Amino acid sequence: MAGYNLEAIEAAPFKDDLDIVIPTIRSLDFLEQWRPFLKPYHLIIVQDGDPSIKIRIPDGYDYELYNRNDINRILGPRASCISFKDGGCRCFGFMVSKKKYIYTIDDDCFVAKDPSGKEINVIAQHIKNLETPSTPYYFNTLYDPFRDGTDFVRGYPFSLREGVPTAISHGLWLNIPDYDAPTQLVKPRERNTSLCRYVDAVMTIPKGVLYPMCGMNLAFNRELIGPAMYFSLMGEGQPISRYDDMWAGWATKVVCDHLGFGVKTGLPYLWHSKASNPFVNLKKEHSGIHWQEEMIPFFKYLRFSKESDTAAKCYMELSKMTKETLGKVDPYFVKLADAMVAWIEAWEELNPSVVDDKKKCNEKDVKAK
Amino acid sequence: MAGYNLEAIEAAPFKDDLDIVIPTIRSLDFLEQWRPFLKPYHLIIVQDGDPSIKIRIPDGYDYELYNRNDINRILGPRASCISFKDGGCRCFGFMVSKKKYIYTIDDDCFVAKDPSGKEINVIAQHIKNLETPSTPYYFNTLYDPFRDGTDFVRGYPFSLREGVPTAISHGLWLNIPDYDAPTQLVKPRERNTSLCRYVDAVMTIPKGVLYPMCGMNLAFNRELIGPAMYFSLMGEGQPISRYDDMWAGWATKVVCDHLGFGVKTGLPYLWHSKASNPFVNLKKEHSGIHWQEEMIPFFKYLRFSKESDTAAKCYMELSKMTKETLGKVDPYFVKLADAMVAWIEAWEELNPSVVDDKKKCNEKDVKAK
Repeated sequence: MAGYNLEAIEAAPFKDDLDIVIPTIRSLDFLEQWRPFLKPYHLIIVQDGDPSIKIRIPDGYDYELYNRNDINRILGPRASCISFKDGGCRCFGFMVSKKKYIYTIDDDCFVAKDPSGKEINVIAQHIKNLETPSTPYYFNTLYDPFRDGTDFVRGYPFSLREGVPTAISHGLWLNIPDYDAPTQLVKPRERNTSLCRYVDAVMTIPKGVLYPMCGMNLAFNRELIGPAMYFSLMGEGQPISRYDDMWAGWATKVVCDHLGFGVKTGLPYLWHSKASNPFVNLKKEHSGIHWQEEMIPFFKYLRFSKESDTAAKCYMELSKMTKETLGKVDPYFVKLADAMVAWIEAWEELNPSVVDDKKKCNEKDVKAK
Repeated sequence: MAGYNLEAIEAAPFKDDLDIVIPTIRSLDFLEQWRPFLKPYHLIIVQDGDPSIKIRIPDGYDYELYNRNDINRILGPRASCISFKDGGCRCFGFMVSKKKYIYTIDDDCFVAKDPSGKEINVIAQHIKNLETPSTPYYFNTLYDPFRDGTDFVRGYPFSLREGVPTAISHGLWLNIPDYDAPTQLVKPRERNTSLCRYVDAVMTIPKGVLYPMCGMNLAFNRELIGPAMYFSLMGEGQPISRYDDMWAGWATKVVCDHLGFGVKTGLPYLWHSKASNPFVNLKKEHSGIHWQEEMIPFFKYLRFSKESDTAAKCYMELSKMTKETLGKVDPYFVKLADAMVAWIEAWEELNPSVVDDKKKCNEKDVKAK
């Protein structure tokens, strides 16, 4: 597609516009292998669990580290909206960042190789995905039309070829696929390898279509969608785990659909090293496995009002709908709805100019057209 | 996905259940190269243009050949619904077939190789696509969950994992991509090569999402969707060409969505050898380029009544909607709507048991569950 030659994106693209958010309970030795790709960036590390444990961070990385005491101090009573003993705590990092883009990665993930044996620069690919438009209103059979060497096919309406701004780039995983506990139990040895299961494509998930967003290898535009990227209330004290990213994925997708932003999935891949314990996962997931049968139709059929014209306003409206509709499924969702309000209040306190920023960003987009 | 090990599909899968339909104006020498893969099947050749021209067919192929005189004789006054001097005439072959599956291919297409250098058996892949379910109600980020070595990911509701019957398998093209005339003119040298643009994936196009279906490399289940696979009124005497497959694609997609059938796109690739003349194409396409801006919203927002519970009934209803809504765009659509009725009448005359067959087929599906 003319005008989007992104081959120019180098080793450390958008270095000053992107923060890397990592939730962890252990030492971050995995960053050693990532050095060529991630070292130029600023890290926001969210330490989960016991704050007295000392996290080791490889030399040379520029970072800020928050443990539970920091979260409690910074958010006060609203800190209860941030999950404890669950990877969902990562969303605290989204809130304290001041950058345009976030890349978040799990600490059991490593650099993957493409089928030619070349190491994959995940951030360069995510930036390409985010910097080129999405096409949510009609499906292009040759996948991402903004990629070099491809385009819109015959029968693609010209009125839709400009696309819409991309808010989310969902990357995939080689080696251990992201299966739920029942599937892990049934297929303990299934692996995604770069030779037989590498799919060299990026695509827009169409408007009105929901997908299971995994938080392992995820980038997004904070200015467009940040306030809706809340990883829910999971872990200690909650009846559910391992649905933190799913909740965030469904919520951000419906907000993107409403606001006219795009969501892409596909490249880049990373190497997911470690299958979590399926027996532990089964216990964590069992409420979610039931509730997803109610949550997905809820997201599928909800509609925002016209007044909700920012991600934050949509999210406040979503909180009301969650309480009213899912509150009937389980009291947990009433608690979650309150946490969603606390999340938005905290977001707005820490990001007072977010509304103005968003406006400016939109104006810039309009000018660019 | 357990229970769908399709590696057993051999060189000539479903030999007695599939017809190959080829529209042509020239000798079918391209079939020489296809011999290892296509020779076991019965061909239905639809000769376009001058019926006095003798088409040469490579030895050893089992075929029936229809020229315009045959079409006129078999369909009588309804023969006017079959395009003349346009590849859309291929749909006559769909009508006279008695098989469950149709594979249709253009005569400028050849065997492609996958990135490992192996020749691709297009029919084996299409049969895999058609014999395994589709998943139109929720997006699976690891693509086709019924493929060996992959599955549904975490966050995919268990209630949707059975999928729905697949009606259409849309294959892609290496070498010359299927671009419209303006894009051909702008990018005359763009090529899809197996090393840099081969995407090793099959996916369901979600419910409610439209796509540009190309007729170059297409397979479908005649019993499920045949009556809606009408390639419209194009070519000589009509104000539009090169939208025959698009019309069929939009119509079959909305019918599939209504009836609960799936549409897949992706593998298999074939080798498209010859870019058609972009200057000629521009003339053929110009009405379509305008009208697609009206046709696509028309298909996007139409809804069938509950009474339309077969593809044929849906198509009769679609004909009425076409006349009422698109008839206002151009008188051509009034003529098209009448041709759609003639098409269904002819289909039912040639396929008197199609309603019963479909019922049987559905009963079988229900029993299988």
